[in-house]
Amino acid sequence: MSKPAVAYSRIKKINSESVTDADDLLAVEEPLEIRLSVGTMNDRSRKSISVTMRTPGNDFELALGFLFTEGIISNQSDVVQIRYCAEQNSADNRENIVIVELNTDVDVDLKKLERHFYTSSSCGVCGKSSIEAIKTTHSLSVSGLEFSVDQEVLMGLPAKLRARQNVFEHTGGLHAAALFSPEGELIFLREDVGRHNALDKLIGAAFSSGKLPLDQHVLLLSGRASFELIQKAVMAGIQLIAAIGAPSSLAVETAKKFSVTLVGFLRNDRFNSYNGEQRIKYSGNKALTTFIGEI
Amino acid sequence: MSKPAVAYSRIKKINSESVTDADDLLAVEEPLEIRLSVGTMNDRSRKSISVTMRTPGNDFELALGFLFTEGIISNQSDVVQIRYCAEQNSADNRENIVIVELNTDVDVDLKKLERHFYTSSSCGVCGKSSIEAIKTTHSLSVSGLEFSVDQEVLMGLPAKLRARQNVFEHTGGLHAAALFSPEGELIFLREDVGRHNALDKLIGAAFSSGKLPLDQHVLLLSGRASFELIQKAVMAGIQLIAAIGAPSSLAVETAKKFSVTLVGFLRNDRFNSYNGEQRIKYSGNKALTTFIGEI
Repeated sequence: MSKPAVAYSRIKKINSESVTDADDLLAVEEPLEIRLSVGTMNDRSRKSISVTMRTPGNDFELALGFLFTEGIISNQSDVVQIRYCAEQNSADNRENIVIVELNTDVDVDLKKLERHFYTSSSCGVCGKSSIEAIKTTHSLSVSGLEFSVDQEVLMGLPAKLRARQNVFEHTGGLHAAALFSPEGELIFLREDVGRHNALDKLIGAAFSSGKLPLDQHVLLLSGRASFELIQKAVMAGIQLIAAIGAPSSLAVETAKKFSVTLVGFLRNDRFNSYNGEQRIKYSGNKALTTFIGEI
Repeated sequence: MSKPAVAYSRIKKINSESVTDADDLLAVEEPLEIRLSVGTMNDRSRKSISVTMRTPGNDFELALGFLFTEGIISNQSDVVQIRYCAEQNSADNRENIVIVELNTDVDVDLKKLERHFYTSSSCGVCGKSSIEAIKTTHSLSVSGLEFSVDQEVLMGLPAKLRARQNVFEHTGGLHAAALFSPEGELIFLREDVGRHNALDKLIGAAFSSGKLPLDQHVLLLSGRASFELIQKAVMAGIQLIAAIGAPSSLAVETAKKFSVTLVGFLRNDRFNSYNGEQRIKYSGNKALTTFIGEI
């Protein structure tokens, strides 16, 4: 049985009139350590490469999505096995360490890796160098197929996300990343206390099911769009990212650099487009057309 | 002149009726690298210990708050000098590297430090071990003075935060951390694209002005309360944390472990208390009292 994603807590609800005892549901937050097992048949070594605070659930996807978006693995055959660390199976740390055994032909420079993660996975000392760092690891080729989404489909996505965001509904405490078809059909939805984890889980799910690159899909982010999220989406070949919150400056720059469509402040009646609006079909501007026609 | 915290972007605003070109303000996101200069007079060495994606502004406070909450420095005399790296002063990376020169008597084990940050500053493989890790670095003694806040003062804080959150108002893209007196007077407000950075900046400001420990203050967080934020607050001696968003399970556990009052979903007419409600004075429950009196 996997660890629960929610926990009960006894709380007090306070308003101007009263103080009431109540039960509340919290989003669970616990560390997940990712360890790599690498090397040749006769010379294997293990290395802890990351500890992230995450909500339990889809842990293997999280590990795979993380390794993929960091450029450490690139296809399913790179991974021989993925499992929880069995040696440390006490009640507290059960399922908090994932070991990813890589194929002998996967060349991972652990020294380089250490330096890489050491600088918090952003690598650079200016926005430009951070973007350059993606370019060096970004090897996924996208299909190059034309891809577009109706404006009305796009504006319908936040409601679809809310309708399916089970854990968030009860706790108010989770970020979500969701993948939709161009017709607005939900394909994957992943939740986590960390927004980067939610996206890693989603990309890990696509990786595991052989769906990468995701160049014919829409990525919906429940919150703001930071550089790190655009970076991960670019690695997965995503060409249209829509965020319910605001994008940062570096998120917009990165979207421009990789010709990714970036939508922000997505609501059911409006949104902003920060780049690549040619992938959005404006279906509803009849009023404007009519008005112009009447002049 | 310090780097701007906001950037203009040419965008399209889309609704069901029209597509309009517009100028938009974005929250700036750029990497900040923190480097330590440590050792004896004759044997100094430099070490890059962190790169975080942050919004420019209050960078020295960010560096000091980070070092303090990680337990690397504990008082002002530990720091000889703090400055931007002058050698790499191109237009792009200007003010993106901060060098903190530590006093010769500050004992920093760089090897240990590397391992520490390597595991993403959470150190453990279960919630319990993450909490234990705070206890080992938590050396700040709080005054032990009684401290409480009126319920109505508390419910008034979100409006005060919004009124002063300049950058957020224009971009919708920033987290904030604010420090208030028990009477609800704003002392420090810091904003950032990263919620941990906003809190590091705030704690760094308190560190620089000799205000630590903050055991007679209220910390207000603009979003959700994660473990990492409670950890930093505990390091600074804060005894009452109020979040406008939801707390995570580990945030609540940590608040309980350190007897910190934790409020969530703070609104102008209600909130939840997850721990330590003895520090909240219920001023407004007259209706309830009257009702009971009438039975």
